[in-house]
Amino acid sequence: MSDALLARARELDAADPLAQYRESFELPEGVTYLDGNSLGALPKATRERLMHVVGQEWGSDLIRSWNPTDAGGDWISLPQRVGAKIAPLIGAQANEVIACDSVSVNLTKLIGAALDMRPGRKIVVSEPGNFPTDLYMIQGLDSAEQRLANRDAMLDALDEDVALLLLTHVHYKTGAMYDMAALTKAAHDVGALVLWDLSHSGGAVPVDLNACGADFAVGCGYKYLNGGPGAPAYAYVASKHHDAFRQPITGWMGHKAPFAFSDTYEPADGVSRMLAGTPPILAMAALDCGVELMTEIGMERLVAKSRALSEFFRTAMAEHCPQMRCVSPSDPAKRGSQLSFYHEEAYALCQALIARGVIGDFRAPDVLRFGFAPAYVSFADAARAVTELADILETVSWDKPEFKQRAAVT
Amino acid sequence: MSDALLARARELDAADPLAQYRESFELPEGVTYLDGNSLGALPKATRERLMHVVGQEWGSDLIRSWNPTDAGGDWISLPQRVGAKIAPLIGAQANEVIACDSVSVNLTKLIGAALDMRPGRKIVVSEPGNFPTDLYMIQGLDSAEQRLANRDAMLDALDEDVALLLLTHVHYKTGAMYDMAALTKAAHDVGALVLWDLSHSGGAVPVDLNACGADFAVGCGYKYLNGGPGAPAYAYVASKHHDAFRQPITGWMGHKAPFAFSDTYEPADGVSRMLAGTPPILAMAALDCGVELMTEIGMERLVAKSRALSEFFRTAMAEHCPQMRCVSPSDPAKRGSQLSFYHEEAYALCQALIARGVIGDFRAPDVLRFGFAPAYVSFADAARAVTELADILETVSWDKPEFKQRAAVT
Repeated sequence: MSDALLARARELDAADPLAQYRESFELPEGVTYLDGNSLGALPKATRERLMHVVGQEWGSDLIRSWNPTDAGGDWISLPQRVGAKIAPLIGAQANEVIACDSVSVNLTKLIGAALDMRPGRKIVVSEPGNFPTDLYMIQGLDSAEQRLANRDAMLDALDEDVALLLLTHVHYKTGAMYDMAALTKAAHDVGALVLWDLSHSGGAVPVDLNACGADFAVGCGYKYLNGGPGAPAYAYVASKHHDAFRQPITGWMGHKAPFAFSDTYEPADGVSRMLAGTPPILAMAALDCGVELMTEIGMERLVAKSRALSEFFRTAMAEHCPQMRCVSPSDPAKRGSQLSFYHEEAYALCQALIARGVIGDFRAPDVLRFGFAPAYVSFADAARAVTELADILETVSWDKPEFKQRAAVT
Repeated sequence: MSDALLARARELDAADPLAQYRESFELPEGVTYLDGNSLGALPKATRERLMHVVGQEWGSDLIRSWNPTDAGGDWISLPQRVGAKIAPLIGAQANEVIACDSVSVNLTKLIGAALDMRPGRKIVVSEPGNFPTDLYMIQGLDSAEQRLANRDAMLDALDEDVALLLLTHVHYKTGAMYDMAALTKAAHDVGALVLWDLSHSGGAVPVDLNACGADFAVGCGYKYLNGGPGAPAYAYVASKHHDAFRQPITGWMGHKAPFAFSDTYEPADGVSRMLAGTPPILAMAALDCGVELMTEIGMERLVAKSRALSEFFRTAMAEHCPQMRCVSPSDPAKRGSQLSFYHEEAYALCQALIARGVIGDFRAPDVLRFGFAPAYVSFADAARAVTELADILETVSWDKPEFKQRAAVT
């Protein structure tokens, strides 16, 4: 390992105001984890909280925990309570965000809502190479017609046939970040609505949905929010649409009075009508813990750390691994909390790094992606990843059997 | 407590071949739990399994657990693996069932699939007073038109405009059970498809989807399968439809090759195309534990115990609480694993029972419902509930403050 690089990393760690939060996570010994943009690490509080929810709230209090109890309970309001905690991370009001279902399912709801609010228009604009599920959800709806445009042609793709602009704010593969305010305005100028996928943004980069006048958003609970594998997602509906919006997955938990058991659906007030089925309480409690930690740290400190960390990594890579071509924007204000590098042997490099305890990830066909979850990744982690990769690039033989493993999940 | 009733209950418990399984659950001291049809009890194995999944698979192995690991992992195939374990409980083949999303979301998928397979027909037949979410999901889809018919007029409601017959096999409130074979045939006779909601059936009553030729089914993970609060649901698609069916919530996990990150949706083979977003692993692992216990006991023994237990309760109620009118079928072969009783003060009675540690539930406006989860409810539990209720009916004053609490969740 480069001594100078490590020494510089240690100086930065010593001055890092977030350094203490690394202790709030369970990170395995000997592992350098740069994949928190795929699956966030385990907050220590989550284990205890889950034991309480499982043993006491479920095991002992049983059905009574749907209501408030001495031990906690109040499961019925968890989606709204978790949503309210996510809200300040994305520039929303507490009553505009709810935790529910998956990103995919929430996309179906909100694409449906947008088409319903723009009768006579059926086009949903997005970009080729968007995270696949965003495109697939458009393709699944008979009522929607997909129009794809590259980034440099996005404004030209917006016209008065467009019902909805659906974009992922931070690109999952390159980390490139859209100008949310400008694109929201451009869509509104042609009478279209906007739905932002914040999966790679929430808890990592500055987002101000209210200031941008955004209509709808969805986001992921298991990346920077550290909610656990397959954690519930969240959805945002701007308060200006709370009276008018109607979404197609009209489950009983989104009813105005679920326990009246009426035969006729009447939507609950505001964002609560985004609920469909019974919320997954164990998963929701884990998400709650992850979100609480992020709100405690606060977006300002998370963003500052994220930018410092990724800039440190980017410059170190340029120096020590010049053969890796960075495909992420070089301006940290224009990218997410990740850096991606092109190499034709990206898959093999990813496997070789994993064999040395450095976990980044591979995105087909040729991108090696490193995420910098600002709450727990240290500068020393970044330095170690760079020096291991430099060593691999010098010494590796590409046909070793450990390169044959399957790729991991986004 | 009636000594004779309790003595008889103890005899039956002593002869009960499932008595040992009570020890497989964590049941709180002093509580008689007759609400497993709303939220199943906590299997002891679940606590340990969750600690392993959280601490080892998530905390230590992190993203690698999506693939098989030394510690377990293989999260990616959990929906199919859990589905395969549920299959024998409902008369299905292993590759016809998958665990995913909620009952509500799965209803949207399968109503959409049925309408797609019956072009030119848009009517979905169901009954008034069905569990609300079943009706609401029809109402949410612009492509569907709801036609409601009472049970005695159900056959007349089926004609060649009908795309789908959507019924809940065991009624959530009364426990009345449909003749699945007869109604499936009647629907097929007019060219309609059938979707059975098994929420109150799976793990409690005999179900043979294959023998009935059923097309689709959904079911709940948190009732008799003991998967925990808001556990993932399951969905069944008959193998005869595996090539043709198309569902509208086309998320990336239901893609033929999710990690190819293609821009174009191509459905995965068979029931796997029911997947939408990333599966909730913590909740899915808990469901897996609950399902394993049910498959270990086996449906034959579960059904025998359920019928014996509910008959014991029904006859004891007739003797000791004659003012409670049973609204469930008296033939145990024609009802679910529950008994419901009409009383105009049902809500207050439910609260009074809870205050004495007997947990049943209330269903608006006037039904008191008792569930007999055969894996852990004893005859002594049933005897205790009857004698407490008899005592309440004799002694209670209806305006006590504890009667003002909110009703619990189904």
